[in-house]
Amino acid sequence: MLNRGQLVLNEFLNPIKILFEQKAVPKEPWSDEQIKFFLQTLSNMDTDKDIKAARVGEREARIASKIHLKTSAGFCHGIGRSGFLTAPQPKAPGGSIMYEITNYLARNFLKKFGLPNIKSAIIVPLCTGMSLALCIGALRPDWNIKDLSNKRTVLVPQIDHKSLIKGLDLMGIKRKTIGGKVFGDAVRIPVEDIKLSMDKDCFAVISITSFFPPREHDNIKEISKFAKENDLVHIVINAYGIQSSEWMDLIRSGIDAGRIDAVIQSTDKNVLCPVGSAIIASPDKEILTKISQAYAGRASATPVVNFLISMLSLGTKGYQRLIYNQQKNRKLLEEKMSEVASKLNERILDVFNPVAVAMSLKNLKKEYLSSLGGALYNLRVTGPRVYNPEEDVFGTCCSNYVTPYIVMNAAIGATSEDIDLAVERFEKAYAQITHK
Amino acid sequence: MLNRGQLVLNEFLNPIKILFEQKAVPKEPWSDEQIKFFLQTLSNMDTDKDIKAARVGEREARIASKIHLKTSAGFCHGIGRSGFLTAPQPKAPGGSIMYEITNYLARNFLKKFGLPNIKSAIIVPLCTGMSLALCIGALRPDWNIKDLSNKRTVLVPQIDHKSLIKGLDLMGIKRKTIGGKVFGDAVRIPVEDIKLSMDKDCFAVISITSFFPPREHDNIKEISKFAKENDLVHIVINAYGIQSSEWMDLIRSGIDAGRIDAVIQSTDKNVLCPVGSAIIASPDKEILTKISQAYAGRASATPVVNFLISMLSLGTKGYQRLIYNQQKNRKLLEEKMSEVASKLNERILDVFNPVAVAMSLKNLKKEYLSSLGGALYNLRVTGPRVYNPEEDVFGTCCSNYVTPYIVMNAAIGATSEDIDLAVERFEKAYAQITHK
Amino acid sequence: MLNRGQLVLNEFLNPIKILFEQKAVPKEPWSDEQIKFFLQTLSNMDTDKDIKAARVGEREARIASKIHLKTSAGFCHGIGRSGFLTAPQPKAPGGSIMYEITNYLARNFLKKFGLPNIKSAIIVPLCTGMSLALCIGALRPDWNIKDLSNKRTVLVPQIDHKSLIKGLDLMGIKRKTIGGKVFGDAVRIPVEDIKLSMDKDCFAVISITSFFPPREHDNIKEISKFAKENDLVHIVINAYGIQSSEWMDLIRSGIDAGRIDAVIQSTDKNVLCPVGSAIIASPDKEILTKISQAYAGRASATPVVNFLISMLSLGTKGYQRLIYNQQKNRKLLEEKMSEVASKLNERILDVFNPVAVAMSLKNLKKEYLSSLGGALYNLRVTGPRVYNPEEDVFGTCCSNYVTPYIVMNAAIGATSEDIDLAVERFEKAYAQITHK
Amino acid sequence: MLNRGQLVLNEFLNPIKILFEQKAVPKEPWSDEQIKFFLQTLSNMDTDKDIKAARVGEREARIASKIHLKTSAGFCHGIGRSGFLTAPQPKAPGGSIMYEITNYLARNFLKKFGLPNIKSAIIVPLCTGMSLALCIGALRPDWNIKDLSNKRTVLVPQIDHKSLIKGLDLMGIKRKTIGGKVFGDAVRIPVEDIKLSMDKDCFAVISITSFFPPREHDNIKEISKFAKENDLVHIVINAYGIQSSEWMDLIRSGIDAGRIDAVIQSTDKNVLCPVGSAIIASPDKEILTKISQAYAGRASATPVVNFLISMLSLGTKGYQRLIYNQQKNRKLLEEKMSEVASKLNERILDVFNPVAVAMSLKNLKKEYLSSLGGALYNLRVTGPRVYNPEEDVFGTCCSNYVTPYIVMNAAIGATSEDIDLAVERFEKAYAQITHK
Repeated sequence: MLNRGQLVLNEFLNPIKILFEQKAVPKEPWSDEQIKFFLQTLSNMDTDKDIKAARVGEREARIASKIHLKTSAGFCHGIGRSGFLTAPQPKAPGGSIMYEITNYLARNFLKKFGLPNIKSAIIVPLCTGMSLALCIGALRPDWNIKDLSNKRTVLVPQIDHKSLIKGLDLMGIKRKTIGGKVFGDAVRIPVEDIKLSMDKDCFAVISITSFFPPREHDNIKEISKFAKENDLVHIVINAYGIQSSEWMDLIRSGIDAGRIDAVIQSTDKNVLCPVGSAIIASPDKEILTKISQAYAGRASATPVVNFLISMLSLGTKGYQRLIYNQQKNRKLLEEKMSEVASKLNERILDVFNPVAVAMSLKNLKKEYLSSLGGALYNLRVTGPRVYNPEEDVFGTCCSNYVTPYIVMNAAIGATSEDIDLAVERFEKAYAQITHK
Repeated sequence: MLNRGQLVLNEFLNPIKILFEQKAVPKEPWSDEQIKFFLQTLSNMDTDKDIKAARVGEREARIASKIHLKTSAGFCHGIGRSGFLTAPQPKAPGGSIMYEITNYLARNFLKKFGLPNIKSAIIVPLCTGMSLALCIGALRPDWNIKDLSNKRTVLVPQIDHKSLIKGLDLMGIKRKTIGGKVFGDAVRIPVEDIKLSMDKDCFAVISITSFFPPREHDNIKEISKFAKENDLVHIVINAYGIQSSEWMDLIRSGIDAGRIDAVIQSTDKNVLCPVGSAIIASPDKEILTKISQAYAGRASATPVVNFLISMLSLGTKGYQRLIYNQQKNRKLLEEKMSEVASKLNERILDVFNPVAVAMSLKNLKKEYLSSLGGALYNLRVTGPRVYNPEEDVFGTCCSNYVTPYIVMNAAIGATSEDIDLAVERFEKAYAQITHK
Repeated sequence: MLNRGQLVLNEFLNPIKILFEQKAVPKEPWSDEQIKFFLQTLSNMDTDKDIKAARVGEREARIASKIHLKTSAGFCHGIGRSGFLTAPQPKAPGGSIMYEITNYLARNFLKKFGLPNIKSAIIVPLCTGMSLALCIGALRPDWNIKDLSNKRTVLVPQIDHKSLIKGLDLMGIKRKTIGGKVFGDAVRIPVEDIKLSMDKDCFAVISITSFFPPREHDNIKEISKFAKENDLVHIVINAYGIQSSEWMDLIRSGIDAGRIDAVIQSTDKNVLCPVGSAIIASPDKEILTKISQAYAGRASATPVVNFLISMLSLGTKGYQRLIYNQQKNRKLLEEKMSEVASKLNERILDVFNPVAVAMSLKNLKKEYLSSLGGALYNLRVTGPRVYNPEEDVFGTCCSNYVTPYIVMNAAIGATSEDIDLAVERFEKAYAQITHK
Repeated sequence: MLNRGQLVLNEFLNPIKILFEQKAVPKEPWSDEQIKFFLQTLSNMDTDKDIKAARVGEREARIASKIHLKTSAGFCHGIGRSGFLTAPQPKAPGGSIMYEITNYLARNFLKKFGLPNIKSAIIVPLCTGMSLALCIGALRPDWNIKDLSNKRTVLVPQIDHKSLIKGLDLMGIKRKTIGGKVFGDAVRIPVEDIKLSMDKDCFAVISITSFFPPREHDNIKEISKFAKENDLVHIVINAYGIQSSEWMDLIRSGIDAGRIDAVIQSTDKNVLCPVGSAIIASPDKEILTKISQAYAGRASATPVVNFLISMLSLGTKGYQRLIYNQQKNRKLLEEKMSEVASKLNERILDVFNPVAVAMSLKNLKKEYLSSLGGALYNLRVTGPRVYNPEEDVFGTCCSNYVTPYIVMNAAIGATSEDIDLAVERFEKAYAQITHK
């Protein structure tokens, strides 16, 4: 009978053994109990748990409340050492192992889901915008030279997303924005325009994959070639792009064809964990080392642990299922919105986007357009974007987009109920606004 | 009997009511159950908990595992909105209230423990070094001017702390370091030397309070006056200084006498929460608004919640007791080390420091000095610093410190057992090294 | 935005309000967070949480560890008062409310799932066998009379289940067992035999619904009539019978047609909670009051809370789905076992049972029969019963059952994988045993 | 660095190893994390955690909610097997080990704290009253004999405690109560009176240690001798007596001098865990085996786990400190009550009791006496007992106690604040009642 007990316990512990052997995202999801057990065992290796230690540093991961053990998953020492994120911290052997294995999983995860040609990945406890700032800070040329003015500019194909703009501004970067142009319904930034914007002060170029209609993704492949030819740092913002094999393909061929230094993606948007971290990946190990050395201190371990929890609780099988559902829901969203569009004499905008769908609102009087957002909020629809050309054009990534529209997303993790309800309530809100 | 039940329940809930009324750190500690109840109630106001919502955004705080609710204390949406940390997030009413009340507590906490003259404080989910980077990025002059070279330099009285140096380097700042000078046992940076280093390219000056012997704190008051006179941004690094009323006094008079823009302190070192956040305070509200607008995106809520948990679980009473114990332990540490010093024919260095004590090691052969650190690590003493003048001088904050020494801290949260054991084991390690 | 927060929070709290209004099992499942919140709020009404109380009793629900708050769901005072289980405990207003509402849910649950004609139900922190003992102890005639010998016997249609036998023995009851008879494949106890066993010493009769093949349920209706006519206490053991509308129907008509004093069912077997409690129901309120007054002291609240958790986390919808799956799996089990039976030249025994299926093993040599159980255990099949007529006949409920057989259950909560795997492994075990 | 991690982890795990080696209550308290880790590891050995199992029993410890894992500490299978509490359960190897080790700790705990001469102890998931019922049921002579009337009586020196009386009544026992007599202030039951009550129908005698003044403990030694001489089962009710070495001494000499079959003590009152279990100990192993075989089924594991948690979280050191504080508080209580007594012209009753103190209330008018209890309840004093001779005499254990009194307890786990506040509020209540 004891053998049976041992057998069952081993079954419970076995995935942990395999994880250390393979350093890969498990195929099957782990149970919550397994994840907690694993995190607890690791965090119990940190010196703040050592009851025989004598602590005479000013920073010893002392905590005021047991609740802190929950919010930090036990990793009270955080991650990193003296401003080198991935350096092992002698006071936190368990936390250091946790961070190392998490970074292995991040790399393995990206390799499995579309980027076989990256070499290294790390989880940083920063949002996408701050991650861009960190990458730029790490990869820009040394400004401690006289002739500073030469290399302070980054080429930015127009991205109407405040966090990214702020990330660059924070670093004292001069943005040279290449405005979007309208092609049918879509807004694109022609590579030629980017090339023409190049001047001697430029040291980097940004490009994006996932964005909202009408803005389509950039031509990552051509920008990569251009970056290589002109010795430009090239950072791809792949905010919520992992969920789409089409967006990932763009990056994969960009890496093969030219130069990509770093690819940045949000963890919460891609792997369903609380807001607060990003995956930075690179086809070049040394570049990632540079980036991880640029973070100036130790950081909270929680955002890193959150990514790890997602990986273990989903497994590759769980993530494949999420992607499968996302694709079904994206199709459903287009169907439902098409139905409504034909009722309202509108149409689905012809813009490539594997997550979002946009519908014109040309028949909605301008004074109604501005109340649509509020009406949807009151009907508890979160996340739609309504564009009114007479108000702010920010968001279209160009200066002259005349068609008003609404965008909705069938993003990873959404349910078919979300889609059904949102479209239904949109119709209701539309009726409310226009009929009284 | 039901009345009694209601009465007891009200007793449980009452502190929450008072917290919202007074927006102040409670006097009495809250129980873990009260803290959890409070956090849970707030986080249940966020839209990701709304079972009737239809979610069609790309970011809806969806989570893969229930464990994420623990690590985020339920605040899956993080904090901040489009790169404005303190702006309320419509998708997260509860998280927004949580962050607002936490910032009120941060201000109230600093006011109560030494800085009555600050006007505003925020918790940022960044370490001290990154907080310095954020402040500098927010407060530096606009570099989108032609003549950039003029205003890129920060005056730094020598601080041998990598995170801070890295924080400045990350931002593309030119550091003008004013070297430390030896005064008896102490290393100080004379204000005159700082003044002499000033040139037209300088736009800011850094100063510090808490540091390790032999480096003493800066003359915050004089530097503040100097900053005011010369229109320099002045940022005080008060890493673990809240625990000492003497260090806090320096800042208080600095604010009164001249110009201090921001004071940065680590939360884990001061209020015993897991590593990962800092308090930035300012005597000027607008300056803090600028800083909070510089963070480029949303951030993890956990580092903020961790500070909140510390405040509620300690109360002002608990923090006063911690300070009281710190002072006793600091005294104990000096006594114990003095005893050992007299046995070894060494002496306590005459350096002002309310947390740390340093002892000379002039009788220890140089070849032994380098093995002392390892010996202590093996005896499970964490945190001591051993200085060997024949190796790296980094840490002394000057170029010519000839006395070898060891530093130990009686920091807030340490116990008298820590002190006793550490000194005892130091003696043991010393004997091990020298006798064989 | 605050309104939205309030709205979402109300959505979270609303089910609690409805629960108190309707005192009925909710239709929709509650989330874990809602259940915990509810339990915590109630348990915070108990006086052991009153920080202003002065406690000078010998029993004040003091606890040595915070972990006790988890294992007791906060109800440290247990349930009951001076040996009256359902009496409100002045020191535990919250615990008393919890127990009262749980008992309402127990009644409502049984009414909804087959017994509309019961009037009262309670959860007792005792297993089925001890519940039988408690009922018998409460309902037997007063033995403090001279002529005790007259009323000490209970009529028991043969039930080969040790716990029930022990329950009666513990109470000093004389069991008069009426042996089972074979009818085709089935074992039944003819009502006539029971009637014939009656003598003047009998004061009660037991009957059962759920049991293992070949024993079928008793003729509850006729026994009820007989009990009424002869003024006998009649207790129905419905151990895991709630899951089957057919078994429940037997009891329902028994109540209508004659006399049933109490119906006992296990909670873990019926509503999937940890082992340790039973539901005792009665068509007569006063009888239940008697039973609840017979428990001699306060009891652990946990077994009660466990039932409550099951009710709230399942909802009637969840329970209906469980029943639906049970029925599908029962069918699947019979199909799978039929296939195997035809391969092995055996047959499914013709015994009525909505949960279990039995298959003959007449072609398996007797020496192999005894190793089959062990082989299945090693293949990690839990729960099957193998009968070997040459060993103990206990379990068949008769003295002369000649066909060897194996029984498997498709009980509530089992998955189709359980069924598939179990039958598959049975085949494997059979092959292992016979081929070498 | 990895070695350090391993070292710290081993430090964490080491107490578990020692526990299995020594099967003794640890000297030092375990941390909550260690206790949880230990319980989780054990419960993960049970077959309900086996993801590869095929479950075709009707009882497989399936659970409806993850919360059940908390309330059961993971031991969903409960304890016991087919009505034999301490028999290992093949489906629950971990739970079986847990129960076995807990029973070892129970024995070791009693041996260390006053009863070196017991041989065996078990934790039963029953209150004191039900434990008495279980013991009586297990140890009474076989009633399946003709001449039943001979052996149905138990001698009970008057104990005015409903649970015990109910426990005996439930079992169909005839109680022969020997009334208490007043000796000065104290109420005692002279051993001679017990001896005189003996008749041929008696098979057992009960005795008590801990009780409320004015009732003093029984003369356990003489009753033990008497039991031995007359071949009577002797059960000692030691409800909350472990905390007092004086009460324990009585039992110890009783065991040495005569016959004691079982000693019953409440766990919540003695070791501060939630209400719901008892320790039954015996100087004879076989007697305990009989008792554990009398429980008719499996039982909830939680009450057992709760005792285990108390043992591990206190350690012998923690328990000694609790006892030390109890003694101080008992002294304090007497001092405080004496002061008040002299103010009110009352006196402390001269009754031996190491936990409780009683004070006369002869100057309080009878009409006020009855409102004193309510006044104290409203002032949030829980646990005091007020005796009014004109109302019910139940509680004095005699029929003619004329002095009204109030009793308060300084029980284990109470704080000096409890004592101070209770006496203070008593004075206040007294004033309230008498002055208006």
